Amino acid sequence: MATAAEIDAMRRAIGLATRGLGHTSPNPVVGCVVLDARGEPAGEGWHERAGGPHAEVNALRAAGERARGGTAVVTLEPCDHTGRTGPCSQALIAAGVARVVYAVADPTPAATGGAGTLLAAGLDVEGGVLAAEAAAGNEAWLTAVARHRPHVVWKYAATLDGRSAAADGTSRWITSPESRADVQRLRAEADAVLVGSGTARTDDPQLSARTGDPATNQPLRVVLDSGGTAVHPGARVLDGSAPTLIAVARDTDTTHLDGTPATVLRLPRAAGGPGLDLGALLGALYERGVRSLLLEGGPRLAGAFLAAGAVDRIIGYLAPALLGDGPAALSGAGITTIGQALRLEVTDVVRLGPDLRITAVPAPPAVPTHSEEN
Amino acid sequence: MATAAEIDAMRRAIGLATRGLGHTSPNPVVGCVVLDARGEPAGEGWHERAGGPHAEVNALRAAGERARGGTAVVTLEPCDHTGRTGPCSQALIAAGVARVVYAVADPTPAATGGAGTLLAAGLDVEGGVLAAEAAAGNEAWLTAVARHRPHVVWKYAATLDGRSAAADGTSRWITSPESRADVQRLRAEADAVLVGSGTARTDDPQLSARTGDPATNQPLRVVLDSGGTAVHPGARVLDGSAPTLIAVARDTDTTHLDGTPATVLRLPRAAGGPGLDLGALLGALYERGVRSLLLEGGPRLAGAFLAAGAVDRIIGYLAPALLGDGPAALSGAGITTIGQALRLEVTDVVRLGPDLRITAVPAPPAVPTHSEEN
Ligand SMILES: NC(=O)c1ccc[n+]([C@@H]2O[C@H](COP(=O)([O-])OP(=O)(O)OC[C@H]3O[C@@H](n4cnc5c(N)ncnc54)[C@H](OP(=O)(O)O)[C@@H]3O)[C@@H](O)[C@H]2O)c1
Ligand SMILES: NC(=O)c1ccc[n+]([C@@H]2O[C@H](COP(=O)([O-])OP(=O)(O)OC[C@H]3O[C@@H](n4cnc5c(N)ncnc54)[C@H](OP(=O)(O)O)[C@@H]3O)[C@@H](O)[C@H]2O)c1
Repeated sequence: MATAAEIDAMRRAIGLATRGLGHTSPNPVVGCVVLDARGEPAGEGWHERAGGPHAEVNALRAAGERARGGTAVVTLEPCDHTGRTGPCSQALIAAGVARVVYAVADPTPAATGGAGTLLAAGLDVEGGVLAAEAAAGNEAWLTAVARHRPHVVWKYAATLDGRSAAADGTSRWITSPESRADVQRLRAEADAVLVGSGTARTDDPQLSARTGDPATNQPLRVVLDSGGTAVHPGARVLDGSAPTLIAVARDTDTTHLDGTPATVLRLPRAAGGPGLDLGALLGALYERGVRSLLLEGGPRLAGAFLAAGAVDRIIGYLAPALLGDGPAALSGAGITTIGQALRLEVTDVVRLGPDLRITAVPAPPAVPTHSEEN
Repeated sequence: MATAAEIDAMRRAIGLATRGLGHTSPNPVVGCVVLDARGEPAGEGWHERAGGPHAEVNALRAAGERARGGTAVVTLEPCDHTGRTGPCSQALIAAGVARVVYAVADPTPAATGGAGTLLAAGLDVEGGVLAAEAAAGNEAWLTAVARHRPHVVWKYAATLDGRSAAADGTSRWITSPESRADVQRLRAEADAVLVGSGTARTDDPQLSARTGDPATNQPLRVVLDSGGTAVHPGARVLDGSAPTLIAVARDTDTTHLDGTPATVLRLPRAAGGPGLDLGALLGALYERGVRSLLLEGGPRLAGAFLAAGAVDRIIGYLAPALLGDGPAALSGAGITTIGQALRLEVTDVVRLGPDLRITAVPAPPAVPTHSEEN
């Protein structure tokens, strides 16, 4: 049984882990607190960036000699393999730690097994402490490794009546400065940001994370532009402020992108639908280390993602305004009758200035109460 | 200065007043607490129904002899005129009350002057105590008497993406049982409920307040059916469970309504728009004693009300679902560009089962920061 001090330390470690969001992919975010032999906090650390030391190593360094005979409290099972850094299991053994408490088991085949190594070395090991909270903090990474595709957050901005622009197409600004700043934070926490060609053409978005902090993570900017007609030299997405990937169909001429900072990604076309194959896109992004993807629209691309079951979380910024006309925030999700509605579960409602931010996840499928086979 | 006991009593009186909602029109809701000479609660009452005794009379009755030398705490300035009941100012004087504390002055020319009469009779009188809270509780009536039209609440149900039905028109059920029960409560608190002919034709709604309580107020059911083509004998709105008013254009043949329980209201057509003149409708409803009107749609009628500036409060039931297609909750409000968006202020957000109920009011017009005349 974890002690009260260990549970406090785990809560702290979960908080530390979040500081790595946006910087650690393809690795998870991890936080660690080392308690000395008397149970007092002796050092803490987190995984700050991919390629850098793991959380345990940072925390052990901070604890120094006080780690000996103490307890390492860590949000994820310590790794057991030598990647860009050595295995954490060995570092913990070498530091003379007597006990390791972790929250979530590492599901990746390469890294798993750390707990076994620690046990074999005679350490006391306990897993599952505050597992749900820790898993929530690592949701994007855990979803990504389980599905072999990035965790996808669709964000949209709309009026209370679901319009994302007025009848004449104007939309600056539907939402408040507070909401727009929140979107910059979402970008900074994402590995990649995605828009469809329609949005690229109409809005010419820059898609960078403008948080005012120069140390902010800049996500990979991705535009789906099958025919290579939406993104031209001079587009803001090609301004060099962050890496850019333009996804096109295999046979598309991309000479117009020569000499721009963009990387071209060639994908198969979607089978039986418009645009590119989303499964292939997500697979290619995963291969490039993208674990979290922020889908910023537009309505049609969001509809295609929802129809493909490829949205894990929805964040709607609802402005207290009515338009009564103009394009909807979502279109073409392939739903024709009310029984097919995509049901969600609201997990969070927050006021951002005058706006509401509603966070939701797809609801688990309803269990049929009687056989549907007759 | 009101004492702490008087302020407590006022808070209680404001709560008592709300029990009359839906029953008192064309009168306001009023609550009253009588404190004895030592400041202890001696009796309380509220205006239970139009034509019945006023709140002060009910509270004085409950207090009996203990009212003498005491204080009457009442949410609205006591009336000074003889309507269906005698003036409350006289009742208070006759009961030997020494002091009267009220929240909101009575704005109606016929009833006003109660405070003056009490002062002239030598009572101590203080107004304005918890005035904002008391006014909020009487919002519909105060708005109605100020504008000479009913206070209008527009309620709608929609998905997070603003759809009020799926592409095939199905909409049962977008929102949860909890939200639908809440709508029944809104109906019970309203003097009248209104729909357009489109909704009458498609949904054949009953529009009664089904709260499970037989003592529930049944609002007047109103359908705008210019050409007399949407409501036919057999329509649920003609089931006799509540009074019904069918508004038609002046020249419309209504022989199909002969023998039904409906009252026919003839109105001028709207100048330069579809349907009937909404100003004339609201005036006619006010004349009939309607102080609070629940506008239940559909989208086009709501658009016309919003365009006319005739919506005082908006209550949206947002279901955590996405449709991506299907009719919007609002249409044709006459807004073409983002600068004309009808800006609101969210006053309340509540979870109703899985749904969100968002209450908003039109935002006060923004003060221009520089001259617009150049
Ligand atoms: N309020 C908001 O939150 C928000 C956010 C973003 C955009 N917007 C607005 O939305 C409008 C643009 O939206 P939109 O719906 O026209 O365009 P969109 O969703 O941005 O882009 C759709 C296009 O993406 C390309 N695409 C590639 N693969 C696809 C796939 N598998 N499924 C679907 N599309 C795929 C297709 O064009 P190709 O095949 O030719 O590449 C398709 O036409 C703009 O006016 C913008 O201002 C609003
Ligand atoms: N989700 C929700 O909250 C909700 C609520 C209600 C309805 N609905 C859905 O909405 C659909 C019907 O909506 P709708 O927009 O077609 O019809 P509607 O708004 O219910 O009715 C519009 C009609 O009302 C009449 N009208 C009379 N005076 C008017 C005026 N001054 N301004 C505008 N209309 C006036 C007009 O027909 P005449 O001139 O011929 O009388 C007009 O066509 C149905 O499918 C229903 O299920 C949804």
